[in-house]
Amino acid sequence: MNDIYITLTGNVAAPPRQHTFTDGSRVTSLRVATRHRFFDKKTQEWSDGETVFFAVRCWRTLGDNVAQSFQVGHPVVVCGKLRIREFGPDGDRRFMPEVEASSIGHDLRWGWAPSPSPNGRAASAP
Amino acid sequence: MNDIYITLTGNVAAPPRQHTFTDGSRVTSLRVATRHRFFDKKTQEWSDGETVFFAVRCWRTLGDNVAQSFQVGHPVVVCGKLRIREFGPDGDRRFMPEVEASSIGHDLRWGWAPSPSPNGRAASAP
Amino acid sequence: MNDIYITLTGNVAAPPRQHTFTDGSRVTSLRVATRHRFFDKKTQEWSDGETVFFAVRCWRTLGDNVAQSFQVGHPVVVCGKLRIREFGPDGDRRFMPEVEASSIGHDLRWGWAPSPSPNGRAASAP
Amino acid sequence: MNDIYITLTGNVAAPPRQHTFTDGSRVTSLRVATRHRFFDKKTQEWSDGETVFFAVRCWRTLGDNVAQSFQVGHPVVVCGKLRIREFGPDGDRRFMPEVEASSIGHDLRWGWAPSPSPNGRAASAP
Repeated sequence: MNDIYITLTGNVAAPPRQHTFTDGSRVTSLRVATRHRFFDKKTQEWSDGETVFFAVRCWRTLGDNVAQSFQVGHPVVVCGKLRIREFGPDGDRRFMPEVEASSIGHDLRWGWAPSPSPNGRAASAP
Repeated sequence: MNDIYITLTGNVAAPPRQHTFTDGSRVTSLRVATRHRFFDKKTQEWSDGETVFFAVRCWRTLGDNVAQSFQVGHPVVVCGKLRIREFGPDGDRRFMPEVEASSIGHDLRWGWAPSPSPNGRAASAP
Repeated sequence: MNDIYITLTGNVAAPPRQHTFTDGSRVTSLRVATRHRFFDKKTQEWSDGETVFFAVRCWRTLGDNVAQSFQVGHPVVVCGKLRIREFGPDGDRRFMPEVEASSIGHDLRWGWAPSPSPNGRAASAP
Repeated sequence: MNDIYITLTGNVAAPPRQHTFTDGSRVTSLRVATRHRFFDKKTQEWSDGETVFFAVRCWRTLGDNVAQSFQVGHPVVVCGKLRIREFGPDGDRRFMPEVEASSIGHDLRWGWAPSPSPNGRAASAP
């Protein structure tokens, strides 16, 4: 079991994009911007580090709910499996961090949310 | 750094309880029921394991938002530090798993949610 | 997927115990003491919190290696699934935090280690 | 607190490299190859996905111990903070996944290890 599980928090950086494959499976992609914060000893204040973007993939009903629920700027908490996708030719390989979401929601650190509406289709377990 | 970070998903099992200490600090406690699922080889179906309850503590503005947003039964995703609280006399020590939340939201696996309303008071960073 | 993955670091608190079940499956149990550290504002020094004990279960070859490698006091880093075992009668339920290890090793924060010896039997993947 | 904590397991892919900065601080860099495994429905067997490399940074005494303990091919379990380093000009940005290790050890899934030798200098807490 070498899967790498991560939980990240940040903000939605682009509108969710939905895609349906020819076999009928559905995925919603979400671009999430995250910044780690650090204590700056010089200024004695908390400060933002560089912004890093993750591509978050949400399958099936989870993806449908995400497409309905998230807009640019929304705060988000997401957990799932980390994938580092490599692409490009040998000698010029590139990496893109990606998360295959198992759970995702609005992070209530930054506001409150009314009850979610069950959509009649439960996400397939597990 | 021996802190143990965990992310758990489950359902709210009791109404959020708010408490204000004499020094003015505020905390909201949430009881979350979680069940791990396992593949039952006999029935060839996914099945629920035992339910385990966690006490989730949310401080300050995060707690205020949680108190406004969560009701019994809501699906939840929460990340934070695991604390195993021990209590009771020697020879009869007991344990209670507790999570000090850093982020929390409605888990959209089970429904969709409208945008959260910023409440004017941002949770104190970090 | 509601499994809760954790990584904990601490020290071995009791000799590893091996057990073979009637069906031939083998498990090694390890008791690990862990303390979170916190910055004490009064003394302006890092300080130890309460000690918490986890039961760590290692199956098959991983367990055999653990039994050969760990003694009381050794520093350890372990990752795996958290289980909160409940037991006792209604009205007097108790909890025991347990980790089903997927990977475990000596934590090199506190010393160095020579190469591990392959034991000829690879732990069954994954 | 937006730090992203991860635990990864894999194998050492290059000899550890030590570096001392002009201010005296020491770091050891370790290249770790990791592959997630997946269940191939066609062949009905567990199979390896693509190999991904992480740069692991170990500071101070932890780094000294790592330099003494790890050789190419050794199995490793490491936990720490994930950093996605970006570099390159605008329009050609690249990413490199990096882990700032808080704990690291030989993963005993693949062999056993004798006791680590305390090196007289404890890694500075926390």
